[in-house]
Parts: sequence; structure tokens; C-alpha cells
Amino acid sequence: MKINGQSYRTIWPDPDDNSRILIIDQRQLPHYFVIEPLTTLDGTVAAIRDMHVRGAGLIGATAGFGMHLAAIHSLPGKIEEALEHGAELLDKSRPTARNLKWAVERILRAAKNGKDDDEKKTLVFETACAIANEDAAFCKALGEHGVKIIEDLSKAKEGETVNILTHCNAGWLAFVDYGSATAPIYAARDAGIKVHVWVDETRPWNQGARLTAWELQQEGIPCTLITDNAGGHLMQQKMVDMVIVGTDRTTHTGDVANKIGTYLKALAAHDNNIPFYVALPSSTFDWELDHGSDIPIEERSGDEITTISGLTENGNIELIHLTAPDTRALNYGFDVTPARLISGLITERGIVAAEREAIHRLFPEKIIS
Amino acid sequence: MKINGQSYRTIWPDPDDNSRILIIDQRQLPHYFVIEPLTTLDGTVAAIRDMHVRGAGLIGATAGFGMHLAAIHSLPGKIEEALEHGAELLDKSRPTARNLKWAVERILRAAKNGKDDDEKKTLVFETACAIANEDAAFCKALGEHGVKIIEDLSKAKEGETVNILTHCNAGWLAFVDYGSATAPIYAARDAGIKVHVWVDETRPWNQGARLTAWELQQEGIPCTLITDNAGGHLMQQKMVDMVIVGTDRTTHTGDVANKIGTYLKALAAHDNNIPFYVALPSSTFDWELDHGSDIPIEERSGDEITTISGLTENGNIELIHLTAPDTRALNYGFDVTPARLISGLITERGIVAAEREAIHRLFPEKIIS
Repeated sequence: MKINGQSYRTIWPDPDDNSRILIIDQRQLPHYFVIEPLTTLDGTVAAIRDMHVRGAGLIGATAGFGMHLAAIHSLPGKIEEALEHGAELLDKSRPTARNLKWAVERILRAAKNGKDDDEKKTLVFETACAIANEDAAFCKALGEHGVKIIEDLSKAKEGETVNILTHCNAGWLAFVDYGSATAPIYAARDAGIKVHVWVDETRPWNQGARLTAWELQQEGIPCTLITDNAGGHLMQQKMVDMVIVGTDRTTHTGDVANKIGTYLKALAAHDNNIPFYVALPSSTFDWELDHGSDIPIEERSGDEITTISGLTENGNIELIHLTAPDTRALNYGFDVTPARLISGLITERGIVAAEREAIHRLFPEKIIS
Repeated sequence: MKINGQSYRTIWPDPDDNSRILIIDQRQLPHYFVIEPLTTLDGTVAAIRDMHVRGAGLIGATAGFGMHLAAIHSLPGKIEEALEHGAELLDKSRPTARNLKWAVERILRAAKNGKDDDEKKTLVFETACAIANEDAAFCKALGEHGVKIIEDLSKAKEGETVNILTHCNAGWLAFVDYGSATAPIYAARDAGIKVHVWVDETRPWNQGARLTAWELQQEGIPCTLITDNAGGHLMQQKMVDMVIVGTDRTTHTGDVANKIGTYLKALAAHDNNIPFYVALPSSTFDWELDHGSDIPIEERSGDEITTISGLTENGNIELIHLTAPDTRALNYGFDVTPARLISGLITERGIVAAEREAIHRLFPEKIIS
């Protein structure tokens, strides 16, 4: 997608030197646009943990390239150990993210097919690139499926603007390109459908205020920032036609872990008969867990709630304290929206009901018996 | 209630000079504790509009004293005009607040009983003081009724800590003393019941993070700050035993306007079978409106969402920008929770179902036929 009119992905190997993986440091958005090189496994783990990169697909792609960095810096004959070590560190960096584990396991499997260190290194790099490329392709595909929902709403409104609410950033910044929740929106724009997006600010990390609003503005999609508290009222006032969110992990039974607060929006959508869709590439499905309540929920530092950073009048990014000293804060990163509140899942193979049988029918090869 | 061990109300006339009404400038909490004098009607209107003071009861009490300031500065023989002018300005300062209109009307009625300017001024001042005193007394009374709910939950948990979630600040800072939602909590503490409060940060003005957490800490009540997004997850995890919130206006049919986001918590409480109570002195009832959807909802500046102020490392309060320039933000201050989601209303006369007949039975003299 575009930044100041120039096309970017969120992660790419330096074309002159594939030991440098380039990312956009999302902590500095929207104030500064900074490209950061990752050159080591440890740096990659820190970049995921400290949220230089975040979002389901992008975490997966970054983990893939992190494994590549682990491989190229491995001691002779020790590449398997280096990859196992990398897998362990990466797995722990964000516990709720499903794509992370999926990408790491795919790299481990690919490496096993190499005869020697060099071949393993090549396979690891090629697989990391394939993960990134597929992520972009899958997001594009789910946009093509999801746009039909927006098109129908637009027709029902006789061409008037379709108002879509989203929570967190499941935009192209959360993936390699296009995004999940945003892919149908970008596709609708491309199809000439009038859309407007309500952007939840998404406390505490403000992914909506900092990332989603910014990326939609860069792409010229009309959007309005609201507090996380406001969506229910907007739905009561019939100012929301549909909700689309992403997910960090979705069970094969249709329960959806996504950014904390998603569940509240799903309840409000349900109470107001507003369609609530979740967009995801199949790499986000967890084919083992039967119950959303078994998904591990990341707990992050309370400092993310009691302090915040932003741009001062002087153009510096500064951290300020929002609370009295010693205020205790609890900071869960995700919640689980039960399948019963979800109108459908938008995947790269089509739109499917959030229930086991339908999901299994669409992805029969994934079923773990 | 106490600040650094010393008892305060949130508003009081200077004992040496009743043309100076003293308030705590709540914009500066929790970083600085600043007492500010109000000396004119215009200053009082600005203090309400710009939220030096806020909260249902305190807005009402401040409006009462604002009318007193209008009266004492009126030209000879023009006190009625001065009061009508004051009523008009005060009414518009916060459109959703019911206590405001109630206080202003009560002052206007009281003034009519005075024979001359001096007597009218005396009656206005006495009525303003009575409004403040009654607010404190009613809050104390609703604490005495509400504590029974907490007591029952404590017994059911065999004395284990009762976890109470609250949204916004309906604490003593929102009233003259005790608070509405907090009054039962303070009463529970006084009765030796173990309580812990989940404090919603309450974007965008952060009444929870800045005021509720601070006042509970000052009173020694254990509390934990959470984002507005987190309450649903905590309820799913059985970490919340009850919800108590305040209200800015409640229809005589039981629909509750309160700080934006309250509706989302009510939905989550309902979905998880958690009792959801609203505490209010009867001055907050609207005896005319039949439907919550007819309550006017204040829209405030989007700047409250796109910028935020807090304490820098140097101890200065600084404003920072959270979003890209030109980000459009929409900022409704309140939402309406339908009566069907409310377990009960805690009033100064007792706990009552959120429905017309029950409310009318408890306050028969208020019914407008």
C-alpha cells in the first residue's frame, strides 16, 4: 500500500543484502516514518515483543525472517540447534499470536528438507519470503471475498456511504500488505463504493489512533477516530452499517481472540442487529484448540496504561504520566469473542460461518483428527 | 472525604466571604491539587463547560452557587433578570446533565419567595447551600442502601474480596461528598467488608484514571486501573462481582444516560450474569422524558481524543498530540443504557427496579401527570 504516494510492504529483505530485513518501526507512527533494519534473531525477538512490528500476519512474517537471521548466523553444522533456539525465543515473544507459531513451524519443517547448511539456509530464506508473499496474496484474496458484503450494504443503502467500524489495526500495517479487516475496505474503494470507517482508538497502545487512522488517510479512505467507548452509542444511533475486525488467533470452532475490547463491540453489534465480521488468512486459525477460553491471553506492562507518548509542540516524541504515582494497572492484550456473536469469517477461500463444521468444510486438509 | 488525610468537600463558599465559591480544579488532578475561587457567573459557566468541575451532583451544586454569584452581582431591581440570564447560560453549559437544570429551577423558584433584592439574595444563597448539603446527605443515604448489595456478595463469597467495576468518576469528586457509585463502596469499607475496585480509565477525559483511581487511593480503597476495553474480558474471567456506575440523567422509566461506554459494560455484565447497578440521588431523574433515546447527548471537541495532557519527567503538565495532523475525531460524551440491562437503581430512598411503576412508587410526589 502507499505512504506519501510510494508503495511499501511492512517487511522486506534488503535487495542488496538479505542479512538485513527492513521493517517500518510502528512505535514511531504516525509522527515519524522510520525504516529499521533487523540483522539478528535477538533484535527480531525484541522488535516483536516491544511492538516495532505487530499484527497477526506481520508477526508471522517477521518470525519467518527472524528464523532466517538465526540460520545465517548459525555456527557450522549447528543450524538445526540455531533454528530450535530461534523457535523457542520467537514463540514466547507474543503468546496470543497464532501466526507466529505457524510461521516458525513452517520454517522448521522446510529446513529439514535441506541436505546441508547452505541448502537449509536457502530453504529457510525462501520459505520466509513465501510466508510474506502468501500473506499479501491471502489478504488480497480475502478483500475480494469481503467486498461483496460491503457491496450488498451499499446497494441496500442505494449507494449511500457504508459506515464500517473497526477495532485495533488489522490494516496493511498488521500484515505484509492490504491487511485483513481493511482488505475488503480497500477493495470497496477500488470498486467505487462509498465507504467511511469509524476507527476505534484502541487503548492502551492506540493502534487505531496511531496506525489505522494514518494508513486510511494515506490511502485516501474517509475515516473518523472515536474512543473505544463510543461504538455502542454509534450503533444505537444507526451510524454503523457493519463491523470488521482482524484476529490474532481463531479456534477451528469459530471463537475469536482479538485486541482487548473486541468482545464489547461484538456484543453491541449483536444488540443492534449489525453484522460483525472477522477477517483472517487461514494461518491465523488454531486447529487444535476447541474453546476460545483456552487461548492464552497476553498480559503486558501496566505502564502502557499509566503513561503515553506523543508529539509535543516542539516536534519531539515525549512520554507523559497520566495517573497518580503508584497507580496499579492491569493490562490484558486480548479478549475472546464467542462464535455466537460473529456473523461470519472472511478468509482467503471465501466467507464462512463461525462454526466448526463450516470451517472444516472450507479447510478440509487442516483438520486434526 | 479525605485528601492527604484532611476532609474536603468538592465545593464550598469561602467562610469569610460568600462571594468567593471555592472548588477543586479537577483538570489538574491527580498531578496537582489546586483550589480555585469562582467569583462570577461567567467564570462558573466556564468552570462547568471546561470541566474544572464535572459529575452529576457537583454540576448541580456548582450551578446553584453560580446562580448565587449572578444574584449578588445583579443591578438594583434586576435580580430576576440576572437569575433568568444565569439560568440560560448555565443550562447550556452541559446539555446532558439533569442535576444542572434541576438546581437552576430550584433556585429560580426559591428567589420568587423573596420580597426584595436582599431577601431574594439570601434565599438564593441558602438554597444553593441546601442543594450542596442535600447532595452530600443523599449520597450518604444511597451508600447506606447500596452497601447491602455488596454485603450480600461478600457473604456469598464467604468474606473474600468483592470486585466492583466502575466507569468514569461517580465518586465524591463528582458530587459534593461521598459520591454516588462510590458511596456504597465507602460504606462497605467502613463496615469492614473487603472490596477491590476495577477502575475504567474512561477515555477521552480519563475521569477514571485521573480522578477515581486517585480518590480511592486517597481513601485507602484497593483499586486497579484498566482500559475501557478490558471490562468484558475481566467479566468473562469471573474477575468482576458487580458493576456500579453513576448517571448524568435517568428517565423516570429507567433508561440511564451516563459517560460514553457505560452501555458496553452493561451489555457485558448482562452477557455474564453480573449485577449492574446505577446509583443516583433523585435529583438526577428526568420526570418528563419517557425514552432514553430522547436525552440530548453532548458532543465535545475532537481535540479531547487527538491530544492528551499529563505530567512530564520534569513535573510539568504538557499537552501531546496522539494522532497524525488533520485526523478527524468525533467525541460524544454520553450514551444511554436501556433499562432492560440494569439490575437496579440505588437511590437515597432505597434500591428500586429500573422501571416506571417501581420508580413512581418510590417517588410518588415527583410524577408529572
